[in-house]
Amino acid sequence: MPEHDPTDLLNQAKRWWSTEIIEMKPGMIRFRGFPIEQLIGSVTFAQMIWLLLRGDLPSPDQASLLEAALVSAVDHGPQAPSIAIGRMAVTCGLPLNGAMASAINVLDDVHGGAGEQCIELYAAIAQHVNGGMALKRAVAQALDAFTKEHGKIIPGFGHRFHPTDPRAVRLLGLVDAARKTGVIAGRFADIGRAVETELQRRTGRRIPMNIDGATAVIYAELGFAPALGRGLFVLSRSVGILAHAWEQTQQGGRIKGPMPPAIPYSYAGHSARDFAKP
Amino acid sequence: MPEHDPTDLLNQAKRWWSTEIIEMKPGMIRFRGFPIEQLIGSVTFAQMIWLLLRGDLPSPDQASLLEAALVSAVDHGPQAPSIAIGRMAVTCGLPLNGAMASAINVLDDVHGGAGEQCIELYAAIAQHVNGGMALKRAVAQALDAFTKEHGKIIPGFGHRFHPTDPRAVRLLGLVDAARKTGVIAGRFADIGRAVETELQRRTGRRIPMNIDGATAVIYAELGFAPALGRGLFVLSRSVGILAHAWEQTQQGGRIKGPMPPAIPYSYAGHSARDFAKP
Amino acid sequence: MPEHDPTDLLNQAKRWWSTEIIEMKPGMIRFRGFPIEQLIGSVTFAQMIWLLLRGDLPSPDQASLLEAALVSAVDHGPQAPSIAIGRMAVTCGLPLNGAMASAINVLDDVHGGAGEQCIELYAAIAQHVNGGMALKRAVAQALDAFTKEHGKIIPGFGHRFHPTDPRAVRLLGLVDAARKTGVIAGRFADIGRAVETELQRRTGRRIPMNIDGATAVIYAELGFAPALGRGLFVLSRSVGILAHAWEQTQQGGRIKGPMPPAIPYSYAGHSARDFAKP
Amino acid sequence: MPEHDPTDLLNQAKRWWSTEIIEMKPGMIRFRGFPIEQLIGSVTFAQMIWLLLRGDLPSPDQASLLEAALVSAVDHGPQAPSIAIGRMAVTCGLPLNGAMASAINVLDDVHGGAGEQCIELYAAIAQHVNGGMALKRAVAQALDAFTKEHGKIIPGFGHRFHPTDPRAVRLLGLVDAARKTGVIAGRFADIGRAVETELQRRTGRRIPMNIDGATAVIYAELGFAPALGRGLFVLSRSVGILAHAWEQTQQGGRIKGPMPPAIPYSYAGHSARDFAKP
Repeated sequence: MPEHDPTDLLNQAKRWWSTEIIEMKPGMIRFRGFPIEQLIGSVTFAQMIWLLLRGDLPSPDQASLLEAALVSAVDHGPQAPSIAIGRMAVTCGLPLNGAMASAINVLDDVHGGAGEQCIELYAAIAQHVNGGMALKRAVAQALDAFTKEHGKIIPGFGHRFHPTDPRAVRLLGLVDAARKTGVIAGRFADIGRAVETELQRRTGRRIPMNIDGATAVIYAELGFAPALGRGLFVLSRSVGILAHAWEQTQQGGRIKGPMPPAIPYSYAGHSARDFAKP
Repeated sequence: MPEHDPTDLLNQAKRWWSTEIIEMKPGMIRFRGFPIEQLIGSVTFAQMIWLLLRGDLPSPDQASLLEAALVSAVDHGPQAPSIAIGRMAVTCGLPLNGAMASAINVLDDVHGGAGEQCIELYAAIAQHVNGGMALKRAVAQALDAFTKEHGKIIPGFGHRFHPTDPRAVRLLGLVDAARKTGVIAGRFADIGRAVETELQRRTGRRIPMNIDGATAVIYAELGFAPALGRGLFVLSRSVGILAHAWEQTQQGGRIKGPMPPAIPYSYAGHSARDFAKP
Repeated sequence: MPEHDPTDLLNQAKRWWSTEIIEMKPGMIRFRGFPIEQLIGSVTFAQMIWLLLRGDLPSPDQASLLEAALVSAVDHGPQAPSIAIGRMAVTCGLPLNGAMASAINVLDDVHGGAGEQCIELYAAIAQHVNGGMALKRAVAQALDAFTKEHGKIIPGFGHRFHPTDPRAVRLLGLVDAARKTGVIAGRFADIGRAVETELQRRTGRRIPMNIDGATAVIYAELGFAPALGRGLFVLSRSVGILAHAWEQTQQGGRIKGPMPPAIPYSYAGHSARDFAKP
Repeated sequence: MPEHDPTDLLNQAKRWWSTEIIEMKPGMIRFRGFPIEQLIGSVTFAQMIWLLLRGDLPSPDQASLLEAALVSAVDHGPQAPSIAIGRMAVTCGLPLNGAMASAINVLDDVHGGAGEQCIELYAAIAQHVNGGMALKRAVAQALDAFTKEHGKIIPGFGHRFHPTDPRAVRLLGLVDAARKTGVIAGRFADIGRAVETELQRRTGRRIPMNIDGATAVIYAELGFAPALGRGLFVLSRSVGILAHAWEQTQQGGRIKGPMPPAIPYSYAGHSARDFAKP
């Protein structure tokens, strides 16, 4: 049985961890074919992110748009669970990597998945349009399907704190500028705005695009897969998590709970009972 | 007792989560005083990282140096536990944020702390020199103290895979260039090289500065606290972790173990025994 | 606006963290009404798990069944990603809590969700039967629905390593015994076995219940919600993760990769290229 | 070079993951030599924990003492960062395993390391006594050394919420009973109480043993290594984390912050400034 031939097994082992991202020999490191020493000092951090995720280098204009999206989502304050967790973690004794891990972990479907879900929504609309449907109808149909499966909250639109999200406005301005110079086609900008219009029509009030909706436009225009909408958000928010964990480290404190100790939680359970006579 | 006055308690609650990083009102977000809409499209991701961590903006030249360090450390291949963990995690069903969390978590003292420890070593040497000691003697004394406490492995120097670390060579070239143009003072570059010299004198062979030693020079020159050496490394390595987790997602696979299933682990424990007659 | 009255806000804060699990005053701790000092030394760890999750105490026979399920799933060796991650983590410098965190995190849908999914499948069948359908037809219909949504792998049945899972056989023996003494009704045991029969009919070969299918029977018989099937599995597997992380701590090692360093990973990406002339 | 002989490499691979905990063949699983089907239904969960961590089975009396310690530490309410994090995590979309991971991760030196540190302190005292020192002097010397290195907080003694910790009182009662029946020698009970006495002498007030000090007595009497004091605490507290995460799942909520949204955090940073004219 060739499976148990040592050489075959060994080749199997080598293939078990197979990657197109990095090639290494002693004294040599190449990313996607490029020697690391050529990249250091030549590409920006945002370009390096693109290279690793996509396999090729973005144009400077594409990189700028990616950079704007990454800059926009770094933080939303300590009332966000991710940030609070990062801060609490260091007061429990964790170093910065551990605090970041516990915090990044909660950037899940609800707290960190809106961008990904919004790109998926845009992509569904785009597919309808590709099939010959008019944009307006494509939007209505995709929204119906989305609402039926996930409920009435449309990821990327509306914000419980900001009536208008200043980040989205600015990002869309950059998108429009990039469209004029041909950096992007503008297709997902149209789709995003059509969603906004349809939501207003349905609800009777403005539910403007928020940061997740606007970064979704950018990531979709640049050709990133939906799942990377979440991945890029994590890279961005990691900066705020690190900054807050570090600030908390400097402030000190031990075993910081969610509220000051003088404010107790409430107990709403079974009244006192005796184990011997339950 | 003023502690229990509702207004006092409430103010205590507001202060419980206090930050200098971000100020928010509905429709308004400011980082370190700057409106977010002014930062988006104007600052690079690396500048935003600096702003959040330090409170002010770096000069473009400072930002370039930080950017080079961030670019240099993104990945070191799937044999690194962090990368392997990120890849295994997605085959267990985790989304990208979760895979990144499990992976980033292990960037701890041994796998992610070398940069921090190296900045601390440089800082100890700098302090000796500030106190009037000659550099050579300061290096010898700090190395003795470090070795006594932590053992013979000096973080930032030598590499088990790369005889010469191509990233360090390139980074030190950028450091030298930045020194000539006055971007940095070059003090920690001198310290790092003096450590290299002393290690060679002690061991009889070259133990060249590696990426951790070189990024430590940059972070120290730019004025980052030692703990942020680890934090910045985590931001950088997160990119590789994300890229590998994403590549694994595309490759597919379920419950990927560390080696191909056909290669078993070895059991070295107690021989078979019967529970009824142990 | 009553929202901003300090007393109202304060009450809101107290309610924000509301629980029925634990009541505390200085010098007093009660779980679900029982003083902790009465529980310590009186209840087993398994009974305490039940009390915290369910709000009341199990009978000793119920507790034994829960205990058997918890005992059965503690470990499946270092080829499991969770165990490997726990071991790798300590070689990166993490203490046991951190190693356990990175490892437990990957007990997600694919690696740790089979029990939960299997309880859901059983519950769907039970619901059909409650509605008056014959068991055989209920099983067929639920399997069709499951396969349509999730693909052909049925959680809880078949094992890629064990032709017959010795844990499942033993657990089902305990289930049968508990049924005879009236501890459980045996309804989900029937359902589980009917699934086994139907799978054999469909595929022409035996796809026997595995540990996840058998613990799902127990958890369902005892009235645990499906999500707790995953939760209880995590508690159980945590024991193995801890044991392996601790064994690795004693074995030592630094930055342990997935395979010995002498076995390289394979690079399958872009050939070498020059950044200056890409 | 024998390193590159395929058979040698393959054997190296098999040894790379070597364990004394579990032996498996298709259809066979043994823990520390015992077939799993013999253990299921015969040993308690606490005995299984001991077997995996220690390699042999405890006597029933030893197991009871371990069980009491595990029961005592399951939870300390939602003001504890670990519990709060577990609850916040599920509102971010995480399943129970992920919530447990983020929470367990913060059971680090400060929030979960007291037991381990206390066992180390007891062990240092025991070593002095082994060397011929009188207990009282051994305690004083070990406390001096500890305080010098770690500051004035002595792990295992005093509690910021409970003047007397009801769990410690009960656990020490069980320890005394076990000593009378010869289950344990009682050496670490004496040491723990001697620490209590010395702390009172030094500070002029009672700083009674808390749960960490009492479980440390038990774990030390039973022969567990200090690091496992932390590991066992994590297993115990995992139960509370799971229970709270599950309760929060049932309560619902999305992106639950640390305080009600109506109570804002406070901003204490730079006043508004203009990016164009900083």
